[in-house]
Amino acid sequence: MVIYLDHAATTPMSPDVLAAYVSALAVVGNPSSIHSQGQDARRMLEEARETVASLVGADPIEVVFTSGGTEAVNLAIKGLFWARQEPGARSPACRRPRILLTGAEHHATLDSVRWLAEHEGAVLEWIPVTPLGHMSLPALAAALDGEDDVALVTTLWANNEVGTTQPIAEIAAAAAARGIPVHSDAIAALGQVPIDFAASGLAALSVSAHKIGGPVGVGALVVSRTASLTPLIHGGDQQRIRAGTQNVAGAVAFAAAASAAGRWLESAAGRERLVELRNRLIAGVLSTVPHAVLHGDRWLRLPGNAHFTFEGCEGDSLLFLLDAAGFSVSTGSACRAGVTEASHVLIAMGMSEPDAHGALRISLGPDSTTDEVDALVAALPRVVAQAQAAGFAARPRVPFA
Amino acid sequence: MVIYLDHAATTPMSPDVLAAYVSALAVVGNPSSIHSQGQDARRMLEEARETVASLVGADPIEVVFTSGGTEAVNLAIKGLFWARQEPGARSPACRRPRILLTGAEHHATLDSVRWLAEHEGAVLEWIPVTPLGHMSLPALAAALDGEDDVALVTTLWANNEVGTTQPIAEIAAAAAARGIPVHSDAIAALGQVPIDFAASGLAALSVSAHKIGGPVGVGALVVSRTASLTPLIHGGDQQRIRAGTQNVAGAVAFAAAASAAGRWLESAAGRERLVELRNRLIAGVLSTVPHAVLHGDRWLRLPGNAHFTFEGCEGDSLLFLLDAAGFSVSTGSACRAGVTEASHVLIAMGMSEPDAHGALRISLGPDSTTDEVDALVAALPRVVAQAQAAGFAARPRVPFA
Repeated sequence: MVIYLDHAATTPMSPDVLAAYVSALAVVGNPSSIHSQGQDARRMLEEARETVASLVGADPIEVVFTSGGTEAVNLAIKGLFWARQEPGARSPACRRPRILLTGAEHHATLDSVRWLAEHEGAVLEWIPVTPLGHMSLPALAAALDGEDDVALVTTLWANNEVGTTQPIAEIAAAAAARGIPVHSDAIAALGQVPIDFAASGLAALSVSAHKIGGPVGVGALVVSRTASLTPLIHGGDQQRIRAGTQNVAGAVAFAAAASAAGRWLESAAGRERLVELRNRLIAGVLSTVPHAVLHGDRWLRLPGNAHFTFEGCEGDSLLFLLDAAGFSVSTGSACRAGVTEASHVLIAMGMSEPDAHGALRISLGPDSTTDEVDALVAALPRVVAQAQAAGFAARPRVPFA
Repeated sequence: MVIYLDHAATTPMSPDVLAAYVSALAVVGNPSSIHSQGQDARRMLEEARETVASLVGADPIEVVFTSGGTEAVNLAIKGLFWARQEPGARSPACRRPRILLTGAEHHATLDSVRWLAEHEGAVLEWIPVTPLGHMSLPALAAALDGEDDVALVTTLWANNEVGTTQPIAEIAAAAAARGIPVHSDAIAALGQVPIDFAASGLAALSVSAHKIGGPVGVGALVVSRTASLTPLIHGGDQQRIRAGTQNVAGAVAFAAAASAAGRWLESAAGRERLVELRNRLIAGVLSTVPHAVLHGDRWLRLPGNAHFTFEGCEGDSLLFLLDAAGFSVSTGSACRAGVTEASHVLIAMGMSEPDAHGALRISLGPDSTTDEVDALVAALPRVVAQAQAAGFAARPRVPFA
C-alpha cells in the first residue's frame, strides 16, 4: 500500500469528479456546432466556466480554458508581452521592454521568459527573493520605477516547491499604480488558499485542474477584461484568445473539482485540520531528523506544503529510498524530476548550490491522514541516514554528532 | 432520436475507449515523478505513444502529445518557422522568409500563418487550388524555385470541409528536393485513410484524438527526427518540444481509439462499406435535390465525406431545419460555425463568394448506417426547399424550374 504525499505534483480524482467526467464524455457534440447536440455541449461548457470562475472570484467571461497550467502561463506571459508590443498598445512599443520576476518562479515561467529574451528581445530583470521566499517589495518598486518600459510582472501566488505565499495584493498594487499588468501563476495555490481575482488587481491568473482533484490536461487562464493579450494558439473562434475545439468533459470535471475545492475552502474545519496536520509533520521531522532544515515561510505558506533539506544526501536518493518504503513524495517540482540539479528556488532564496541539493517536498491533500504523516515521520530518520550512508552525495558528506 | 452525421466535427467515444480512459484516470501519479506511482504513469504514457505512432507509421520518439489538433498545427507551423530563423539553422536566416500554402487550409493554419506574417515577418505565398481542391503541383514547384528563402510548406492531408485528399508524396518530394520542411495537417484524414509518416517525406504531421473516437483535448504532432522545431509552450522537460504535465489518461484513450482505427483501416470490408455508403449518400442527394452540387474530388476524397451546395439558401438555415428534423450535420468547419460567411475553401477552389454560401457537409463514421443515410436523403429535398422559401438567403433567390 503506497502512501501518496505528493499532492503538489498531481492529485487523485474523487469518485464525484470522475462521475461528472464520465457523464460528460457521453455527450457527443462539438460545442462550436450549431445543431442541438453541439448546443448541449456548449451549455455544459459555459456552466463549467461559471463554476471555475466562482472558485477564483472572476467573471465567467474572464475564464479561458487551456490544456493546463503550463499553457496558461505561456499564454499569459507571451500574450501580455506580445500585446505590449502591438501597435496601439497603451504604452508605446519599446525595443527592449523588461519583464520583472524572481528567480524562484516555476520552469513554465522561467523557460517562457528566457525564450522571450532570446527570441523577442525581452530584458529580464530579476527581483531579489527574501530567505523565506517572498519577492522583495522595495526591489520591485525600484525596478518598476526604472527608465525602460516594463511589459509585465509575473509572480507565483504560492511557490510550488517551498510553499511560500506571495504578497500578491502589494505586488499588483505597485504595478497597477504604474499601469503595468501582473500575471500570477496560482497553480500551486488553487484550492489551498482563497483566491479572489476581482480583488487581486491582477491582469491574469493561471490555474490547473489536476492539482485540485480534476483531470490532467485542463487548466485556465483568467484574464481581466481590461488586459490586452495576444493569443498563443491561433485558429477557430472558440475562445477569444485561445483556439481549438473546447474540451467540454475536461471543463466539466474541472468544475466538479472546483466545486469541491470551494466547499473545502469555505469550511474552516477542513483548512485548520490540514494546517495542523502539516504542522505535525513539520514538528515531527524537525524533532526526529538531525540537521533537518525547513524551507519557506512557516506562517505564509500553503497549508499542505512541507519542504526540507537534509544535509549530506541527494534528494533523489531520498526519493528512491522512500519509494521503496512505500511513500510517494518529491524533491521539488515534478516538472524537473529526473534532472539531478540543485533547486533553483532554494538558490534564489539565498542557499548555496551544494546546500540546495537534498531537498524533500512533502505535500498533503485534504484527504491525507494523521496515520500517513506519522508513518512518514517514523520512517524518515532511517531513510535519511541510509541516503547519507549510501554515499549518493555529490559533495563530501557532513558527519553528524 | 438524433441522427449524428457530423463525424468531421467530433466523434462519439466507443465503450472500449471510454473503459480504457476511465481505467487510466484511476492511476494517480505524475509521469515526471520519480516514485513508482509516477513511473507506472510513465509506462502507460509510453505504451500509448507507441500505439499512436503505429497508426501513423512513425517512431514513438517522433510523437509529441499536444492538447489537440489546433495546438499541434500551431506548434508545427510556428515551430518550423521560428527554428528556421534561429542562428545555426540549416538555411541562413532571412529577414522575410516565405510560407507556402493554399487558401483552402484550416483556420488553425490560416490564423497561425497570418499571425506570423503580421508579427514575425513571414511572407505568405498562396499556391493555387484546383477546382477539385488539390494544391497545384506546378505552381508549388515554381514557388519553391523562387528567389527568397522558403521556411516551410504546409498542407492539409485531406480538406476538412470538402474531403479532397492532397498529393502529399508529391508535395513532400518537391519540397524535400530543395531542403524545405513540409507540415501536413492530417486531422481530418486520420483514421479515414492510411497514413505512413516514415514514407511520406514530411517534417511534421498534426493529428487529433477526438476525430477518431478519442477524447477532445488530446492530439499529437509527429515530428521527424531530422526536423528542427522551436517549442510553442515552454516549461518543464516533459517532452522535448512541448512542456506541461503529460495527460496520461488522454493519451491512453487516444491510443485505444488509434488501435480501433488501425484495425478498421486494415479491414478492406469496413472501408469499402463506408465508401459505398458515402457514394449512396452522394447519389441520393444529387438525384433528389434540384441543382445540388457536389464539391471536392469524387475519387480522391475521404471515405466519410460528402459536401454539397444548394443554390439559393444559406447553409446555416439548412442546419437549423435539419436539426429540427433530427439530423446533426455541418456547413463546413465547426471551428467557424456561428460565423455566417462564405466558405473560404470553396472560394479557394474557384467559386464566387455568393455561390460559396449554402454549403452542407455530411460526414459519416464507421458506425453510420444505411438507414441513417437514407433518412437524410429522404428529408433533404423538403428541407432545402424550405430553406430556399424561408428567404434566409443573403442574395436573390434563384427560381427553380
